[in-house]
Amino acid sequence: MEFASVWRSFGAEVTVVEALPHLVPLEDVAMSKVLERAFRKRGIQLRLGATVDVVKETGSGVSVGLADDVEIEADVVLVAIGRGPASSGAGFEDAGVTLDRGWVVTDERLRTSAAGVYAVGDLVPGLQLAHRGFAHGIFVAEDIAGLAPEPVEDRLVPRVTYCDPEIASVGLTEAQARELYGDVETREYSLAGNGKSQILGTSGLVKLVREMNGPIVGVHMVGARMGEQVGEAALMVSWEAFPEDIARFVHAHPTQNEALGEAALALAGKPLHDHA
Amino acid sequence: MEFASVWRSFGAEVTVVEALPHLVPLEDVAMSKVLERAFRKRGIQLRLGATVDVVKETGSGVSVGLADDVEIEADVVLVAIGRGPASSGAGFEDAGVTLDRGWVVTDERLRTSAAGVYAVGDLVPGLQLAHRGFAHGIFVAEDIAGLAPEPVEDRLVPRVTYCDPEIASVGLTEAQARELYGDVETREYSLAGNGKSQILGTSGLVKLVREMNGPIVGVHMVGARMGEQVGEAALMVSWEAFPEDIARFVHAHPTQNEALGEAALALAGKPLHDHA
Repeated sequence: MEFASVWRSFGAEVTVVEALPHLVPLEDVAMSKVLERAFRKRGIQLRLGATVDVVKETGSGVSVGLADDVEIEADVVLVAIGRGPASSGAGFEDAGVTLDRGWVVTDERLRTSAAGVYAVGDLVPGLQLAHRGFAHGIFVAEDIAGLAPEPVEDRLVPRVTYCDPEIASVGLTEAQARELYGDVETREYSLAGNGKSQILGTSGLVKLVREMNGPIVGVHMVGARMGEQVGEAALMVSWEAFPEDIARFVHAHPTQNEALGEAALALAGKPLHDHA
Repeated sequence: MEFASVWRSFGAEVTVVEALPHLVPLEDVAMSKVLERAFRKRGIQLRLGATVDVVKETGSGVSVGLADDVEIEADVVLVAIGRGPASSGAGFEDAGVTLDRGWVVTDERLRTSAAGVYAVGDLVPGLQLAHRGFAHGIFVAEDIAGLAPEPVEDRLVPRVTYCDPEIASVGLTEAQARELYGDVETREYSLAGNGKSQILGTSGLVKLVREMNGPIVGVHMVGARMGEQVGEAALMVSWEAFPEDIARFVHAHPTQNEALGEAALALAGKPLHDHA
């Protein structure tokens, strides 16, 4: 998504081929839909639910054949299906460190199968994000030092996708929360009601997911610069805040940050500037 | 500060005359010093601790005479000493509403001296900010509805000054905290250690103030776009978070938001990317 976005910004014609029905399939589907609309508006071609059959170099470029007989001609193809571990030949298995398809298997305290050996970062299955790696490193250092730190939970690690518009989230999607809790309450707050987003000329939304009459378990955001809002979102989810708790706090006007406060006000049943 | 900043951005030669020793004297003095350095670097002339003796129209413009015999020639003068109430002639006193130099006197539940009459917003002495006015309005509506809301505390209202660099803060300055608590602990985290701020080409800092071995009671920030960080800062102060609590939470990389996490890590005694 980030490369599709930046290449388009540089003026390239970009086509995204995604095998799943939506872009950013790990995000809440409401984010996917906003992103798809925004990308299409930017002139990015989308092929969703499309699988690649064959890729051929043509001399002048590349031809990508999709399963439905569509052929896409392009100068270059970026294969962006995720990064894998580069652990082979490093001697991990000889040292007694169990691997699973190249990943290092750990418990929640990041201990491997070899006594005294920990693993941190992208080599540990889960979110491949720099700040998760930092947190793992701090955790292991503190654990070795006997400080008994709390394990790093992927659920509480904030995620930002640096495309335009930006996507930022923390906690559970609506679908994940429904699976876990059954009934949930959600609210989407449109950035159409947010002055600073209007100044920036961006659209998007903030979506909150709460347990029924319970705490906020997921915050999902899309819009220019919304990655900068994920700190407050992470505190909400980490501290199991109720929307009613957040609604009490004053958010500064005019900021994009205020959209989080407005989303909480709306979910608490008292919307303020709501253009939904 | 906002007009000095924007006029300079438009190319005007700007001189700021401030009677007090520092710019933005209501902010923590660390913010003032960063702003002064940044404004000087932008070519804004500063006259600090300077009082205005006389202002004369010269036909082609204005001449401002300072107490120390300095004369400043300018096209226009903006007098920015704050906004006063516009309450005279509105019949407030006839209705039994006590005024103090034009401001409406209220208790912490925003009740005036006239039974059943409340006041909200800039007319109530304190911070003259739109979001405080919103919060007052919500409070009064809920109070009348019998919902027994918590009063709006100015101390927990976030403040943003939209100059370049931006200033954002919530809670007590170091000086205010020292007056209230005696000993305090503080930590300044330089945006020199923050990747996203480097990308934006901005410098500045995040300063945290805590009660000795106690919660964070003030968050002060300066740098481009730092106003967007004031939501997480407000949660920290409102929830009386310890730096150790915040240090546990993972902040997304690369964001400016991560500077708040790093400031908390530093104040908790475990700095990560610290270029101070």
